[in-house]
Amino acid sequence: MEKWDSNEGTSAFHMPEWMIQFADQKQEFNKRPTKIGRRSLSRSISQSSTDSYSSAASYTDSSDDETSPRDKQQKNSKGSSDFCVKNIKQAEFGRREIEIAEQEMPALMALRKRAQGEKPLAGAKIVGCTHITAQTAVLMETLGALGAQCRWAACNIYSTLNEVAAALAESGFPVFAWKGESEDDFWWCIDRCVNVEGWQPNMILDDGGDLTHWIYKKYPNMFKKIKGIVEESVTGVHRLYQLSKAGKLCVPAMNVNDSVTKQKFDNLYCCRESILDGLKRTTDMMFGGKQVVVCGYGEVGKGCCAALKAMGSIVYVTEIDPICALQACMDGFRLVKLNEVIRQVDIVITCTGNKNVVTREHLDRMKNSCIVCNMGHSNTEIDVASLRTPELTWERVRSQVDHVIWPDGKRIVLLAEGRLLNLSCSTVPTFVLSITATTQALALIELYNAPEGRYKQDVYLLPKKMDEYVASLHLPTFDAHLTELTDEQAKYLGLNKNGPFKPNYYRY
Amino acid sequence: MEKWDSNEGTSAFHMPEWMIQFADQKQEFNKRPTKIGRRSLSRSISQSSTDSYSSAASYTDSSDDETSPRDKQQKNSKGSSDFCVKNIKQAEFGRREIEIAEQEMPALMALRKRAQGEKPLAGAKIVGCTHITAQTAVLMETLGALGAQCRWAACNIYSTLNEVAAALAESGFPVFAWKGESEDDFWWCIDRCVNVEGWQPNMILDDGGDLTHWIYKKYPNMFKKIKGIVEESVTGVHRLYQLSKAGKLCVPAMNVNDSVTKQKFDNLYCCRESILDGLKRTTDMMFGGKQVVVCGYGEVGKGCCAALKAMGSIVYVTEIDPICALQACMDGFRLVKLNEVIRQVDIVITCTGNKNVVTREHLDRMKNSCIVCNMGHSNTEIDVASLRTPELTWERVRSQVDHVIWPDGKRIVLLAEGRLLNLSCSTVPTFVLSITATTQALALIELYNAPEGRYKQDVYLLPKKMDEYVASLHLPTFDAHLTELTDEQAKYLGLNKNGPFKPNYYRY
Amino acid sequence: MEKWDSNEGTSAFHMPEWMIQFADQKQEFNKRPTKIGRRSLSRSISQSSTDSYSSAASYTDSSDDETSPRDKQQKNSKGSSDFCVKNIKQAEFGRREIEIAEQEMPALMALRKRAQGEKPLAGAKIVGCTHITAQTAVLMETLGALGAQCRWAACNIYSTLNEVAAALAESGFPVFAWKGESEDDFWWCIDRCVNVEGWQPNMILDDGGDLTHWIYKKYPNMFKKIKGIVEESVTGVHRLYQLSKAGKLCVPAMNVNDSVTKQKFDNLYCCRESILDGLKRTTDMMFGGKQVVVCGYGEVGKGCCAALKAMGSIVYVTEIDPICALQACMDGFRLVKLNEVIRQVDIVITCTGNKNVVTREHLDRMKNSCIVCNMGHSNTEIDVASLRTPELTWERVRSQVDHVIWPDGKRIVLLAEGRLLNLSCSTVPTFVLSITATTQALALIELYNAPEGRYKQDVYLLPKKMDEYVASLHLPTFDAHLTELTDEQAKYLGLNKNGPFKPNYYRY
Amino acid sequence: MEKWDSNEGTSAFHMPEWMIQFADQKQEFNKRPTKIGRRSLSRSISQSSTDSYSSAASYTDSSDDETSPRDKQQKNSKGSSDFCVKNIKQAEFGRREIEIAEQEMPALMALRKRAQGEKPLAGAKIVGCTHITAQTAVLMETLGALGAQCRWAACNIYSTLNEVAAALAESGFPVFAWKGESEDDFWWCIDRCVNVEGWQPNMILDDGGDLTHWIYKKYPNMFKKIKGIVEESVTGVHRLYQLSKAGKLCVPAMNVNDSVTKQKFDNLYCCRESILDGLKRTTDMMFGGKQVVVCGYGEVGKGCCAALKAMGSIVYVTEIDPICALQACMDGFRLVKLNEVIRQVDIVITCTGNKNVVTREHLDRMKNSCIVCNMGHSNTEIDVASLRTPELTWERVRSQVDHVIWPDGKRIVLLAEGRLLNLSCSTVPTFVLSITATTQALALIELYNAPEGRYKQDVYLLPKKMDEYVASLHLPTFDAHLTELTDEQAKYLGLNKNGPFKPNYYRY
Repeated sequence: MEKWDSNEGTSAFHMPEWMIQFADQKQEFNKRPTKIGRRSLSRSISQSSTDSYSSAASYTDSSDDETSPRDKQQKNSKGSSDFCVKNIKQAEFGRREIEIAEQEMPALMALRKRAQGEKPLAGAKIVGCTHITAQTAVLMETLGALGAQCRWAACNIYSTLNEVAAALAESGFPVFAWKGESEDDFWWCIDRCVNVEGWQPNMILDDGGDLTHWIYKKYPNMFKKIKGIVEESVTGVHRLYQLSKAGKLCVPAMNVNDSVTKQKFDNLYCCRESILDGLKRTTDMMFGGKQVVVCGYGEVGKGCCAALKAMGSIVYVTEIDPICALQACMDGFRLVKLNEVIRQVDIVITCTGNKNVVTREHLDRMKNSCIVCNMGHSNTEIDVASLRTPELTWERVRSQVDHVIWPDGKRIVLLAEGRLLNLSCSTVPTFVLSITATTQALALIELYNAPEGRYKQDVYLLPKKMDEYVASLHLPTFDAHLTELTDEQAKYLGLNKNGPFKPNYYRY
Repeated sequence: MEKWDSNEGTSAFHMPEWMIQFADQKQEFNKRPTKIGRRSLSRSISQSSTDSYSSAASYTDSSDDETSPRDKQQKNSKGSSDFCVKNIKQAEFGRREIEIAEQEMPALMALRKRAQGEKPLAGAKIVGCTHITAQTAVLMETLGALGAQCRWAACNIYSTLNEVAAALAESGFPVFAWKGESEDDFWWCIDRCVNVEGWQPNMILDDGGDLTHWIYKKYPNMFKKIKGIVEESVTGVHRLYQLSKAGKLCVPAMNVNDSVTKQKFDNLYCCRESILDGLKRTTDMMFGGKQVVVCGYGEVGKGCCAALKAMGSIVYVTEIDPICALQACMDGFRLVKLNEVIRQVDIVITCTGNKNVVTREHLDRMKNSCIVCNMGHSNTEIDVASLRTPELTWERVRSQVDHVIWPDGKRIVLLAEGRLLNLSCSTVPTFVLSITATTQALALIELYNAPEGRYKQDVYLLPKKMDEYVASLHLPTFDAHLTELTDEQAKYLGLNKNGPFKPNYYRY
Repeated sequence: MEKWDSNEGTSAFHMPEWMIQFADQKQEFNKRPTKIGRRSLSRSISQSSTDSYSSAASYTDSSDDETSPRDKQQKNSKGSSDFCVKNIKQAEFGRREIEIAEQEMPALMALRKRAQGEKPLAGAKIVGCTHITAQTAVLMETLGALGAQCRWAACNIYSTLNEVAAALAESGFPVFAWKGESEDDFWWCIDRCVNVEGWQPNMILDDGGDLTHWIYKKYPNMFKKIKGIVEESVTGVHRLYQLSKAGKLCVPAMNVNDSVTKQKFDNLYCCRESILDGLKRTTDMMFGGKQVVVCGYGEVGKGCCAALKAMGSIVYVTEIDPICALQACMDGFRLVKLNEVIRQVDIVITCTGNKNVVTREHLDRMKNSCIVCNMGHSNTEIDVASLRTPELTWERVRSQVDHVIWPDGKRIVLLAEGRLLNLSCSTVPTFVLSITATTQALALIELYNAPEGRYKQDVYLLPKKMDEYVASLHLPTFDAHLTELTDEQAKYLGLNKNGPFKPNYYRY
Repeated sequence: MEKWDSNEGTSAFHMPEWMIQFADQKQEFNKRPTKIGRRSLSRSISQSSTDSYSSAASYTDSSDDETSPRDKQQKNSKGSSDFCVKNIKQAEFGRREIEIAEQEMPALMALRKRAQGEKPLAGAKIVGCTHITAQTAVLMETLGALGAQCRWAACNIYSTLNEVAAALAESGFPVFAWKGESEDDFWWCIDRCVNVEGWQPNMILDDGGDLTHWIYKKYPNMFKKIKGIVEESVTGVHRLYQLSKAGKLCVPAMNVNDSVTKQKFDNLYCCRESILDGLKRTTDMMFGGKQVVVCGYGEVGKGCCAALKAMGSIVYVTEIDPICALQACMDGFRLVKLNEVIRQVDIVITCTGNKNVVTREHLDRMKNSCIVCNMGHSNTEIDVASLRTPELTWERVRSQVDHVIWPDGKRIVLLAEGRLLNLSCSTVPTFVLSITATTQALALIELYNAPEGRYKQDVYLLPKKMDEYVASLHLPTFDAHLTELTDEQAKYLGLNKNGPFKPNYYRY
C-alpha cells in the first residue's frame, strides 16, 4: 500500500531520477549501523516504511509498556509462540476491528465462499510484508481460507495496528510486527518470517520490495522454490523492473499497482473524498467561496478539483502537460501559472509527483492564512526545507498543523509538514483497500496456478480479465446489476461473453 | 469525420463482425449498377457517406436548379474551370462561412502564421476526400498556405456545403463535390481529383477509405510516389489495418482517429453538450426531474450522464463491462438492467456500439411519451425495424421526430429513426472540428517530412508529442497558461522539458 | 405569460420608474391613430404584446393568404361563425398540437377528471386575453370542462398559433385572434370578446392588463357582475396595484405571478435549461472552458450560472446586492465588477432587470467574437442603441444573430438584438406552462366560489395552500411519492395534515 | 448559537407543540432541586445548554483539578478577581485561540476599526449569556472596543472553552463560566453577571432565553433601564414572542435568528459541508456509489443532498410539503416514501424538525451496516428510545458511534445517539459564526442607538438593510467586488443606491 504515500499516476512515468536515487539508497540499507535513534532511522528507511495512517494511530494507544516485544515471552491460547507482537492480550479488540472490516470487504468474503470447495492456494506457502491493519488481516485470513500457509511482517515501522497483529497471532498466524519497530527490529521481523526450520515460502507478497530484497541478499536459493512475487507499490515495482532489466529477476512478478481498478480508486475516487476530509480535520475551514490552486491535473488533481468545485470553491489549475491542461479547461478550471494566482489564493494543493513545485518565493508571496498542503508524491513538492530559516517562526497549532510566521506577522498554515495530506490527516476507506487486497489475492492465485511457461522471469500486469473480475466482485456492494451480452451481441462485437471487454489501451 | 456517425470508443474493440461485413460490402462497391435511385444508392454506399450534418443542411437550400453540376459549364473569376460545384456564384456566401469558422480554429491559423517563413508542405501534392464544410475549407487553405497543392472530393454524398465548395473553387482549389451526389457522381468526383494530366498526388488525406480504395483499384502505380496516407475514420483505419495485415499496404499510414485529444473531444466533451442540444431541439422537453436510462458508460455514455445529471435528471446506467460499471457507481449512477427500469423512465439513450440493445420487447414496455434515441454507433442499437409492423402507427411530428403509436394509444417518441442523435439533431462545435483538422495537418507534415525509414509500410498512431502539440495549440483559446518544467525538475522526473510528458499507456 | 419576456424576480421590487412610464404609455394606447404600419405599431403596443415564441413561430407558416381574417366569412363544422381566426381549415393540425400538449399538462387533465362530478365553474362566464398556444388551449378546454363558458382574445399581436386558434374555433370556442394582428385588430378582437348580445362575463383572465383596461374604459358597468380578475403578468399586476392604491379597483383580483411554484419554475429551473438551449441554437458554441460573466445573481442568474458551471464554463458574477453576492461566492463564483473581466470573457449574459448594465464602453472593450445576450427584463439591459452608430457595421448572420463589427475588424456576436434570449431563441417547456395554467385555473375557481366577503376589492396572492396544491398536482409527472404526516406528527408540529406546511415568509 | 442544535428552518413554523411543552418545562426550571447529579441535570436543562461542540471539547482537557471554580480564589494579572473561570493560568493558550479566530472574523475586526473614532456603544452595559468560545470572545472584545462594558455567562453547561474564558478574564472581562457546570452553577453564574453592586445592565444579549428569564423572575425592575434584548435562538425567540403575545414584553427585542444571511449560512451552506465531515469523522465511509435517503428537503436537507450528490452518492428524498417535493424533483432526486427505499439504502439522514420520522419499524427493515443519523432538530427525529430493548445489543465502537445489533447479527450504525450529527461530530467553521456574531453586534448597536419610538415593546426582525450590511462586511473575505448602481440605474429601479435592494418577501 505504498500507494498511499504517493497518489501516483499524476505525472511522471519515465524512470525518474528520484526513483533511481531512492533505489540506490535502499541498497545501502543493511550496511547502516542499527540501534540508532528512531528519528534518524526513519530517514534511512524508505518513506513507505515510516509513514503511517492517522486513523490507525488513533486506535493504538502509545502503550506504557516499554519492554520490547522481542524480549517478551508470549503464547496464544492454543499454546503457540511462533509470532512476535506487542501484546497478545489485545487480540479480542483486534478481532472486532477485523470483523468490522470484513463487512466492507465483500469481494474477499466472496472469494472465501467460492473457495470452500476447491482450495486454489492449497500448498501455497506465502510470506508477506505489508502494512498490518484490519484490512490486511482480512486478506491474510482469506488466503488461509483458500488453502495457503502464511507468515507475515510489517512493511512499515509505524503502521502496524498492535491489536490486529495480536488477533492474527491468536488465531494462529505467525505474525512478526508491532508499532514503533526500530530498523533492526524491522529486518529481524522479516527474517523471522523466512528463516524457519522446515518451512520454505513458495510465494511472496510484497509492498515496497524490502522482503524481496532481503531474500535476494540473504537467501537467494529460496527463489528455486518460489513461484512468483506479487508487488503492490510503485517503488517495489520499479525495483522489480530494474532487476528484470539487469537480468537478475529469477521468478515471475506481478505488478498489481497499475491495474485500472486500483488506479482509479486509489487516485481519482479516493482523493476526491480525502482532500475534503484532510482539510476539514486539520483546519475546520469552510470550502464555499475559497480560492484554491491545484498544481497538477492527473488523476489525483482531477479528484481534488472535482470535490472542491462541488463544494463551492473556486479552483485554478497548473499543469505542464498540454493534454491534461486542455482537460482542465474543458472541465471548467482556469489554467494558470502558479505565480499568477499565488497572491490571491486561500489554499495551495500540490498533486504533481514533481519537486519544488511550491518554492520559498511562492511561499513568501502567499497571503496571510494561506493553507499549503500536498496530495502528490512524498514530501518533495513543497520546498518545506526552505521554510526552516531563522527569520520564520514555526508554531504547532494542532497535530499535523503548523503556522509558519513571517517577520511581518503573516502566517502560512502548513499541513503535515508537506507530507501527504491524505495519508497523514484523513483515512482511507476500507472499500478502497478491499479492491487492492482482492487484486493481490487474485494475483497470487494466478501466479500460483499458472501452467508452466505462461509467465517467464519478467514483470507482468494483471490480465485485464482479472481486473474486470475484481471490479465485478465489488459491484454487489452497490447493488449494481451488470448486463450480459446475448450470443448474438457477443458475435456482433467480436467479444467473449465473459470478457475481457476492452483492448489494453482503453483509457476508461 | 466518420467519427460523427459513431461516437466510438464506447465499447467494442475486437474486430467486430459488422466491421468485417461492412468492409466486405464496400469492396463490392463499384460492381454495382450506377444511376439507380438516390434512396437505394444511399444504402449501398457506406453509412458515413450518406449521413449529413443537420446544421449544414440548414444553410444549403434545396435549390430548384435541377441541372447536374457535371453538365454545367462554370468558371471562377480567374477563368479556371478545374472544379465541379453546384453553383460558383454562391462563393461569396461560402467565404463568409469560412471566415467565421477561421475565428474558432485558432490552431490552424497559428500553423499558417508559423509557416510563413518555411513551407513544411512545399512540394506536397495532396489529394483529399472528406466532408466539405467551412471547417475543412479552413484546413485546405491552411495546407495551401503551408506550401501544398490540393485536389479535393467529398467523402459523403449529402454533407457538402455547396457555398463552401463554391468559395474554395473561386479561390482556386480544384474541388469536386456537391450536396446530393449520386453514387456515380461520387466516384466520378474522386476520379477527377486523382486522374489529372501532369499532376500526381504524393499524399492522401482520407476519411472513410474510399479515396484510398479507388487509387488501389484504379491507379495502383500512383503509390510509388505517395509518401503516406492520413486516415481519420474508424472504418478507414480498420481497412488500413486489414491491408497491413494482408501485406498489401504499400505506404505508411497514420491513424489519427485514436489520438487522445480527438477521442476525448469527440466523445466525452462533445457528447456532454450535444445530448442536451439534440434532445432540446427535437422535443423541447424539460430535463429537470426526468428519469433517464443511459445504456453504456464509455466516453459517450459518461458525457451524456454527466450532462443530464447536472441538469437535474435522474440517471440510470446499464453496462456489460464491470470496470465501467464500477465507474458509473462511483460517479453516482444506479447500475441496472434495462428491464428493471424500462417501465418507469422518461428517456432511453443508447451509447454502446452494440446492436439490439433496445428491443421490441423493451419498446412494448415503455411508458407513454417515452423518448428513445441513440448516441452510439450507427443505427443498430435500437431495433427500429421491429417497430415497422402493421399494428403500430408512425406519425412524423417534426423533422427527425416520430411518434410511434401502439394500438392502446401509447406513444413512443423516436428521434432520428434511431440514427445518431447528435449527427442528426444537433451541431458539432467548430472547436471540436478544429482539433481534428489540426491533427490531420500535423500528421500530413510529419509523414511528408519524415526522414527515410522512420515510417515503414504500416499503420502508425500520431506520436504522443504531436498529440500534445495539438493540445497546446488549442490552449490559447482558453487563455490557458502552461507551466514549464525547470531543468532541475525535468531531470528529477526524467522528462524532456518539451514532452512527451506521459507514457503511451497513460489513461488521462 | 408576460413572464416570458421578463424573467422577473431578479432584482427590482420597488415600483420602478420604467413600470410607471410604461403604464402611462399604455394609458395612451387607444388615443393613437390606428392602421399605421405594423412595425411602428409594435413599438406603441406593450412589449408583451409584440414578442412571440420562436417555437410557435416555427409551426406557423407565414401564409400567403393576405386577406384579413376580419374580412373573411368562415364557419366551423357545426355552422357557428362566432369566432375570427386566420383559417378554420387548419383546425385538424391544431388539434394534434393540443393533444400533444395535453400529455405534458397532467395537472389540468387531473382537474378535468376530478371535475366530472361537480362543475366548480358552472355558470362562470370567463373572458380571457392570453397568448393563444396549444397550452392555453388546454387551459381553455379545461375551464370548459369545469363548467365555464369562455370567450378569448390574444394578449400579443404575434404570438397566436393560427392552427390552435382554428382548432378552438372548430370545437366551439369563440376565439378572436391571429398571428400578425394590427393594433386596431388587437382591440377589435378584445372588443368582440366582451361586447356580445345576451352574454356578459363574470370572470376575467388577463395577461398584461389590456383586457381589464379595455373593460374599465369602455364597459365599466360590466364590473357589477364580475366576481374577480386573475392576472398573471408583472405589468398587469402592477397596474392592478395602482388601481387598488387609487381606490379604483372595484372587484377582487388575484396576483398569480408571485406564487412560489411559478416563480421557481419560470426563473430558476426554466432559465437553467433555456440559457444553454438559447446559446446553442444561435451560436453552436461549445460551453466547456468558456469564460462567462453573468450580471445579476437573482433566480434567473442563479439558473444561468448553475447550468454553465455544470457544462464546464468558468463563470464570473456581478451583483449590486451584498446578500446575493455572498450567495454567489458560496456557490463558487468569483464576484467581480464587469470592468474587471470584460476584456477576457467569451460570453456576457445580463439578468438584472436593470438598464444599461452593459454599456457601449463595455462593448468597446470586449474581445473579438464575444457573445452578448440578455436573459433579464425586456431589452434595456444591454445598451443596444449605442451600437447603432456609423462606424460599426451590423451583419445578420443567422436569425436572431448579429455580428457587430468594429472598424478594426473586431466582431461582437449580439443575440436577439438584446431582447430576451429565451423568449427569442429557445422554447419554453410545456411543463412550465402547465404550472402557470393550473395556477390560473385554481385562482379562477377560488375567486368564483369564494363566499361573499372572503375577498374584498383588493389584490390577493394565491393562498399558500393552493400553491401547494398546484405543486402536488405536478408530482405524479415525476412519479414522486409524498409522505403524509401522522396525526401525532401533525400535532407535534402544530400543522394541519393537509397543509399549508410553511409560513408565508418561508424562502424555499 | 442554539442554532447549532437545531438546523432550523427545515419544516415547522406554526407554534409547534414541542416548543410549547419545552417552554413550559423551562418555566419549571428554578423550582427544581439543585445539586443533583450532572447527568440528570443535563436533562432538566434545555437541550441547548447541554450540547457542546466536539471541536471545543477537543481543546479542553478534562482537567484533573476537581475543585469547583466557585471555591477557588483567582486573580488576573491586574489584580482583579471579578470573574469565575476554571483556571486563569490557561489565559495565554486561550489568547492564541482568540487570535486565530480573529483572522477569520473579518467583519467584527472591520467594525472595530470603523469604531475607533466614534464609539457607538459608549455607555452600553451589556450582560450576555452565550456559548463561550474563541468566536464569542472576539464578539465580546469587539463590543468592548465599540465602547460597551460587558459581563458574561455561558448559555450551556458543557460548551465553555476554559482557556478562552481565562483569556477573557485575564484581559478584564467579568466572565463566569466553565466547562461542566452543574445546574446550580449555571444559575449562579448568570446571577453573578447581573447582580452587581453599582452596575446595572442596559442591554441583554441572550442565546436561549435563560438570562432574560432570570432577570424577569429575579430582577424585573432592571427592565426599566434596559433598552433592548437581542436573542439568537429559535427557542429564545419563541419565548419572546410568547411574552409579547401575553403583553408581558416590556422592552424591544431583536430576533436575529431569522435574518437571511444567518439562515442561509447556518443551514444550507453549513450543512452542505458538515454532513460530509460528520459522516467521515465518525465512519470513514466512502461516499461514492452509496445510496442515501434524506428525510426533509428544507434548507438543511437541500445542503445535505447537494453535497452527497456531488460526491457520487445516489440520493433519495422524502418530503411532506409538495412544493419542497417539487424542488427535490427538479434538483434531480427521486422523491419516495421512506418505506420504499428503507431496505436498500446505506445511509438514512433526517432533516425534518419532525418527530419519529425514523421508527423502530424502519430500523428493523434496514439492511446490515446501514448508517442512521440526524441533521435536524434535537433528537426526536429518530426513535432512538425504541432501540433500547433487551433483544438489541448496543456496542460503542467509537466516540459518537454505536452499533446496534439485532438478534440475527444485523448491525445498524447509529451516530451521536440520534442527536445532531454536525453539532456532535463535526465543527462549525469560524466564518459561519462570524456572520452570526456580526449580526448580534449590529443588532445591539441598532437597539442601543435607535431614537425613542422606533422600536416598541415588541419582537423585531433585523432591518433588511442591516442584513445586507452584514453580508457586505463578509465579502472582502472572498475578495468579492460589489457593483454600485449609477444614479440613473437607481432611479430606474426605484431603489436607494445603498439598499435595501429587495422587498421583505424576497426569497433569495
